[in-house]
Amino acid sequence: MQNFQTVLGQCVKHKTALGYGALSLLAAGGEQLFSQVVFQCPCNAWSFSYSLVSMLVPALVLLLLGFLLNSRTWRLLTGCCAPFPGRSSRRCRLRVLGLLAAGASVAPFTWIAVALLNAAYYECLVTGEQPLAPPWLRTRLCLDRGEACMGDLHRMPCESGEEAQQVIRYLRAESQVLGWILIASVMSFALVCTCINHCRSPVSYLQIKFWKIYMEKEKEMFEAKAKEHAAKLAERNVHSFFECAKPEPFQTPGNREWHQIS
Amino acid sequence: MQNFQTVLGQCVKHKTALGYGALSLLAAGGEQLFSQVVFQCPCNAWSFSYSLVSMLVPALVLLLLGFLLNSRTWRLLTGCCAPFPGRSSRRCRLRVLGLLAAGASVAPFTWIAVALLNAAYYECLVTGEQPLAPPWLRTRLCLDRGEACMGDLHRMPCESGEEAQQVIRYLRAESQVLGWILIASVMSFALVCTCINHCRSPVSYLQIKFWKIYMEKEKEMFEAKAKEHAAKLAERNVHSFFECAKPEPFQTPGNREWHQIS
Amino acid sequence: MQNFQTVLGQCVKHKTALGYGALSLLAAGGEQLFSQVVFQCPCNAWSFSYSLVSMLVPALVLLLLGFLLNSRTWRLLTGCCAPFPGRSSRRCRLRVLGLLAAGASVAPFTWIAVALLNAAYYECLVTGEQPLAPPWLRTRLCLDRGEACMGDLHRMPCESGEEAQQVIRYLRAESQVLGWILIASVMSFALVCTCINHCRSPVSYLQIKFWKIYMEKEKEMFEAKAKEHAAKLAERNVHSFFECAKPEPFQTPGNREWHQIS
Repeated sequence: MQNFQTVLGQCVKHKTALGYGALSLLAAGGEQLFSQVVFQCPCNAWSFSYSLVSMLVPALVLLLLGFLLNSRTWRLLTGCCAPFPGRSSRRCRLRVLGLLAAGASVAPFTWIAVALLNAAYYECLVTGEQPLAPPWLRTRLCLDRGEACMGDLHRMPCESGEEAQQVIRYLRAESQVLGWILIASVMSFALVCTCINHCRSPVSYLQIKFWKIYMEKEKEMFEAKAKEHAAKLAERNVHSFFECAKPEPFQTPGNREWHQIS
Repeated sequence: MQNFQTVLGQCVKHKTALGYGALSLLAAGGEQLFSQVVFQCPCNAWSFSYSLVSMLVPALVLLLLGFLLNSRTWRLLTGCCAPFPGRSSRRCRLRVLGLLAAGASVAPFTWIAVALLNAAYYECLVTGEQPLAPPWLRTRLCLDRGEACMGDLHRMPCESGEEAQQVIRYLRAESQVLGWILIASVMSFALVCTCINHCRSPVSYLQIKFWKIYMEKEKEMFEAKAKEHAAKLAERNVHSFFECAKPEPFQTPGNREWHQIS
Repeated sequence: MQNFQTVLGQCVKHKTALGYGALSLLAAGGEQLFSQVVFQCPCNAWSFSYSLVSMLVPALVLLLLGFLLNSRTWRLLTGCCAPFPGRSSRRCRLRVLGLLAAGASVAPFTWIAVALLNAAYYECLVTGEQPLAPPWLRTRLCLDRGEACMGDLHRMPCESGEEAQQVIRYLRAESQVLGWILIASVMSFALVCTCINHCRSPVSYLQIKFWKIYMEKEKEMFEAKAKEHAAKLAERNVHSFFECAKPEPFQTPGNREWHQIS
């Protein structure tokens, strides 16, 4: 039992890392499910737009969800247009915004990386006709394959001939290499950023740890105290309503004080 | 046990988000079940009307259910036709109505989005004859396919020939792109609205949190007190009836006071 | 029950060794899953780059993850650019960095070793065209097979003819030999390093054991005390906020003291 407690305690301690891990796994699993069930290359002139939308819009939706469900977004935004100038410096806010964006972009990056490793989207994307993309994206696939190749290109993901398989194998390799490059560069960037962030910190490692414990405790205490305070206030108000008596005066913090502690 | 408590506490804390998530999942699952079991394209002149009704009426039903099952609807509506002019400002009411509509439209939007991603409805919708819709919706499908194409169009969702499959693949891609665009725009709109709402708030984040706790406590207290008060009143009335005695005077709040606290 | 406790106690005692073992098993399992599901030799000019990226980038990602998730990295880095010159000697830091790197490179080495034992990557790597690699890597495979061999080489991992099978068998054996040599040399190097490290230690074995126990105890004590201190401080602050009273003075360690104990 003691050891089980230790394991659970470790989980709670590393809950940020575990949370991001679970999120990534969910995004990866969702992508796999999605590409199996919903995605189906149309193999015509729509291929390009369709693949682009199928790959990028879910990532955008995950990004928006990441912002929507994070309570720190609202703590940062609430009242930021109100005229309380001396709340917190512009630099501190940008920092918090950066942290928010980093947290929210874990799931979209996982989605795009898994989509590239999966390669179904990329095959469909490159073989479709693309008025916006540079022409060499398609022409390089038909360099030594004769005239008919360019016309048949958009039909290849749905065919199973030898030539189509060669092109598809080539595109699959390219897609996976792109996916790995994306993963490696995002991870390196994250590591370098965290390193610089920690390295420039003016306080020591143990002090940061202490302040994290303190902030958690303060949050707990605040909630407990707020519940107690609210219960008292509510009882007074309801009581005075049913008894038709005038409410007694009650001491509660003002607007300015709330702003200072936020 | 402590950790299990923590997990449950987190669930209760995020109950709004979890509730909407569960609602969306239910709507999506229901749509899938429905399109598998009930929906079957008739492949004749009825196709258009049938698909439109099958797609929009369930969404409408979900919307009405959303309004019906939300207790805030009734709090807002009760007595709003009665002549108590000074209850609450018109602006505050519009705000509450907006929140209500936003909450009630989560399920219908999920339904329509999943229906578009599923593409079965859209295929049937576009290939059917449509006296109301613009003619280019159908003609663009037969641009380079000869004269017979237009006549066969409404039979395509039930056929498995090469030409029918090409048209169906095209329509499926179009439907999914439309679905993703709908999802992305609704989510962006929701995020922007919530941002503006929070940003223009005159009170701080922690104060909003405190008032939420307070309102919950007040609701609890009010129910407890109302039960107690009602029990006393009922006892007095029943007692005085059986004893054929005149009821003692009892202090209870008047109509005007009830209106003020609503 | 007694025996179960003993087993669990042993597990906790050897948790470092068990942790690295579990990590290695996970890396090996992931590699197997990955090479089955995602990796597919393109059998064209891309073979070489594709295999190299598929083999090395996951190892790099595992290395970066190893650094990111290890709390010792952050203890070492935090505040190392800040102007507190007399914290710890450069030599001691290099030592800690070495230990970190050793711990973080367990998973990547397992990945590469399992990839070499698996041989799918190596077959694809050697048979692909390689502008950067020395030419004898490919030519030795076709020494007594005639002219056509060199041209067909990159298609061999996808073929099942007798000649292709001979070359593939040869490459598979080579890959596994390389894998075993890698495993043996890394393990020998680790053993020699640990030996030298222990041998040059100025304190005795039991003293090191005692200091390990002491450090664990100190960490536990510090955490318990920090929680208590944080709880007191939080209670004081929250209390003074709701009562609108001025907070009492509270004794807490300064920045310099935190730095000295880190």
